Amino acid sequence: MTTFLDEALALLGPRGLTTDPELTAPWLTDWRGRYTGRAVAMASPASTAEVSALVRLCARHGVAIVPQGGNSGMCGGATPDPGGSQLLLSLRRMSAVRTLDPAARQITCEAGVVLQNLHEAALAHGLRFPLTLGGKGSATVGGLISTNAGGTQVLRHGSMRALVLGIEAVLADGSVFSALAPLKKDNRGFDLKQLLIGSEGTLGVVTAATLRLVPAVAERIVVWAGVPSLQVARALLLHCEDAVGEALEGFEVMPQPSLEAVLGHLPGARAPLADPHPWHVLIEVVADALGAPALRERAEAMVASAFAAGLVEDATLSASEAQAEAFWALRDGVAPAERAKGPAVQHDISVPVEKMPDFVDHAVAEVERRHPGVQAIAFGHLGDGNVHFHVIAALGVDRAGFEQGLGKAISSEVYDMVVAWGGSISAEHGIGQAKRAELERLGDPVTLALMRQVKGALDPRGILNPGKLVALAPPDTSA
Amino acid sequence: MTTFLDEALALLGPRGLTTDPELTAPWLTDWRGRYTGRAVAMASPASTAEVSALVRLCARHGVAIVPQGGNSGMCGGATPDPGGSQLLLSLRRMSAVRTLDPAARQITCEAGVVLQNLHEAALAHGLRFPLTLGGKGSATVGGLISTNAGGTQVLRHGSMRALVLGIEAVLADGSVFSALAPLKKDNRGFDLKQLLIGSEGTLGVVTAATLRLVPAVAERIVVWAGVPSLQVARALLLHCEDAVGEALEGFEVMPQPSLEAVLGHLPGARAPLADPHPWHVLIEVVADALGAPALRERAEAMVASAFAAGLVEDATLSASEAQAEAFWALRDGVAPAERAKGPAVQHDISVPVEKMPDFVDHAVAEVERRHPGVQAIAFGHLGDGNVHFHVIAALGVDRAGFEQGLGKAISSEVYDMVVAWGGSISAEHGIGQAKRAELERLGDPVTLALMRQVKGALDPRGILNPGKLVALAPPDTSA
Repeated sequence: MTTFLDEALALLGPRGLTTDPELTAPWLTDWRGRYTGRAVAMASPASTAEVSALVRLCARHGVAIVPQGGNSGMCGGATPDPGGSQLLLSLRRMSAVRTLDPAARQITCEAGVVLQNLHEAALAHGLRFPLTLGGKGSATVGGLISTNAGGTQVLRHGSMRALVLGIEAVLADGSVFSALAPLKKDNRGFDLKQLLIGSEGTLGVVTAATLRLVPAVAERIVVWAGVPSLQVARALLLHCEDAVGEALEGFEVMPQPSLEAVLGHLPGARAPLADPHPWHVLIEVVADALGAPALRERAEAMVASAFAAGLVEDATLSASEAQAEAFWALRDGVAPAERAKGPAVQHDISVPVEKMPDFVDHAVAEVERRHPGVQAIAFGHLGDGNVHFHVIAALGVDRAGFEQGLGKAISSEVYDMVVAWGGSISAEHGIGQAKRAELERLGDPVTLALMRQVKGALDPRGILNPGKLVALAPPDTSA
Repeated sequence: MTTFLDEALALLGPRGLTTDPELTAPWLTDWRGRYTGRAVAMASPASTAEVSALVRLCARHGVAIVPQGGNSGMCGGATPDPGGSQLLLSLRRMSAVRTLDPAARQITCEAGVVLQNLHEAALAHGLRFPLTLGGKGSATVGGLISTNAGGTQVLRHGSMRALVLGIEAVLADGSVFSALAPLKKDNRGFDLKQLLIGSEGTLGVVTAATLRLVPAVAERIVVWAGVPSLQVARALLLHCEDAVGEALEGFEVMPQPSLEAVLGHLPGARAPLADPHPWHVLIEVVADALGAPALRERAEAMVASAFAAGLVEDATLSASEAQAEAFWALRDGVAPAERAKGPAVQHDISVPVEKMPDFVDHAVAEVERRHPGVQAIAFGHLGDGNVHFHVIAALGVDRAGFEQGLGKAISSEVYDMVVAWGGSISAEHGIGQAKRAELERLGDPVTLALMRQVKGALDPRGILNPGKLVALAPPDTSA
């Protein structure tokens, strides 16, 4: 290992390699604090050429690599194992915007560019990168691509995959896969960049990408509506799609108890509607400069016809940008407010959009029936068929005991139900180390076999992010 | 082979297997008449289960499989080799629409559904499948997916890849990869359906798919404009995108000589504009029922501001659906009219959209300078950075001699230029057998190696469409 470190230091210089515990410690625990690992060193290369040479060096020495962006992932996908022999490969130093072409609405940037900086770079040209999420101050382009990140704007613009036009990545042997050129049409065989998107660093290290931009938002209106059920919320979603088409950018739901939790948790928060309703819906409609003048009229017509169709019990439109922000603050406050209630297990799940209302009704009732005292809550991206399903422990239950005991058992039950309903046990957070056992348990065997074949072909020695997502060989179940 | 045929017959029955030359002959030559093969038999399974059992049987006997849809591909990708030992696997009998969900705007259908039937099935529910191309009366869903087909609506809705929500395919060992469930969000690892899209049957046999539908077109207006150069045409494209946003569905270009060729070749055709212009642009804007009332006013404003900005020399808007059809007939007439001029070689190429005008100017001048007497013509999908680049032989030159001699040399020169400009030697037609040698010659070595690794992992014995797209091993260049 000394030889390896010497060679790595010679390659990257002192700014590019450190074993100082003070510098590495913040990056060895995932941000939710669930996993802590150790690393032989933290490498911070400054260029694709350095990444390539480093991976070549690792391949020669058989050193495993854990790529990391902003360390804001939800599944421990960027945290090394506790063995101390893996190399933490930070892409954060590679933070340059290489080119931004406003006419073509494209930006080419390095993997370490932070999402918020990407937003600002686009906005400076009257454009927008239409993906955002809570961790935007830390999350990097490379991490967003490697996890195929979602967020609150997927309804209209898709997940990260839909925004990646080109990619550059270093493969397991150190060679550079260079497909940054943003060709709108290219049918020269397999679309290999698609394999790298969402592969959590197990097939290659993303070093740069060309991304799609859209016109900046000139006007937005946020509608807050009360509805009697998720089934009606789904009907309202279809109604809004028909009424304003692609102006619809957000459609988020939460039950009355979640709203109450936020109101009790967030200083100064006020309920948008006078009365309680079983479910609350946040609807965002936006327009660029072209469509801005007509937006309020369109939104008002959408709400009026929703009233007329009996799809809402009550509704209000944001009268100002400050009020729009306040509505979103209520939505963004759900996860922290629910967390404050006590020990809980969280599930990022999806089912086909049209089945989601019945699934939530079924799963909430089933979990609460089987485990008296626990509380099940679903909220989030109804428009994407993706909710965050939280199960909160009964009052007075010990956190560690719940999370490692009953909570784990409940999670397995939730995932069983998701699979039975044709859904996914990971809608937008990925697999990482957190969900690997469940993926092995519940994944389609043909799909798992295919994934292993691909992993074996691209990383035969298993040096890229081992222990995450998928193993080269199926787990030994003979014991 | 007798044993294999006996077993296949027992499996599929007489409707599912034939060796009758009269029945098989039409399917053994590609539709452009460039390639003719032989087959041990033509199998026409009726279900995914039959395809699975058949592939298993082929794997056991080492019989290679050539999947085929409507046999309307452009690169010989569905034609067996002349050896006579490959099995032609027609998916045409699998032509059922399994489900159509109008609210979710999704259709799940088998691989053999013909594009035109898909259009009609969607239209019956007020919806549209937004991809179309010349061969829509023959092309099947399976073929469109396997070639990631393009066409004239890619500008707005993307190629086939953007419309595939789920896929079912039979893999090289006969196992069924089943991912039809249309989850909007699913981050359980590699997106394997993306590998199958555009893989030309070399990684699996697509048996069914879930596809995205959009609202039907309620109103469309086609603008015909004359412009002084392709550079101005590109500026006009950006202008139209800004002016009408996503109402813009088509942006096609042709030079004056091509228009003249169509006018001389198409009975009753009339020039839309009074005077000749160096380049002609066809612009299509459409609206669903919601946007229909405002469409003409928006289109007129777009054209008026284009005049004001000096972006068009002249322009006219279609006054009726019949006139819109007539404008499109001129566009669709270019390829046949150019073919009627005499022997030619055609190239389906792309470069980054913003470089296309300069590339065309350069390539046309260069080809005509190097080869006095030939005529080079580019026309097509400027909005996608994709033109069809035809080089027509000098007058009196023999067809076969040109196509096999000088034409081939010119093609290589064209592809060299495309690669030098960062483009693709196949924008929308694929590789098949037609472009395989050029892909080996000009492809990025890292990408080719990756493709071979993936091919080797998914089809280690090479029984899926051998001789197409990519070989398991690099060609032997030691001789």
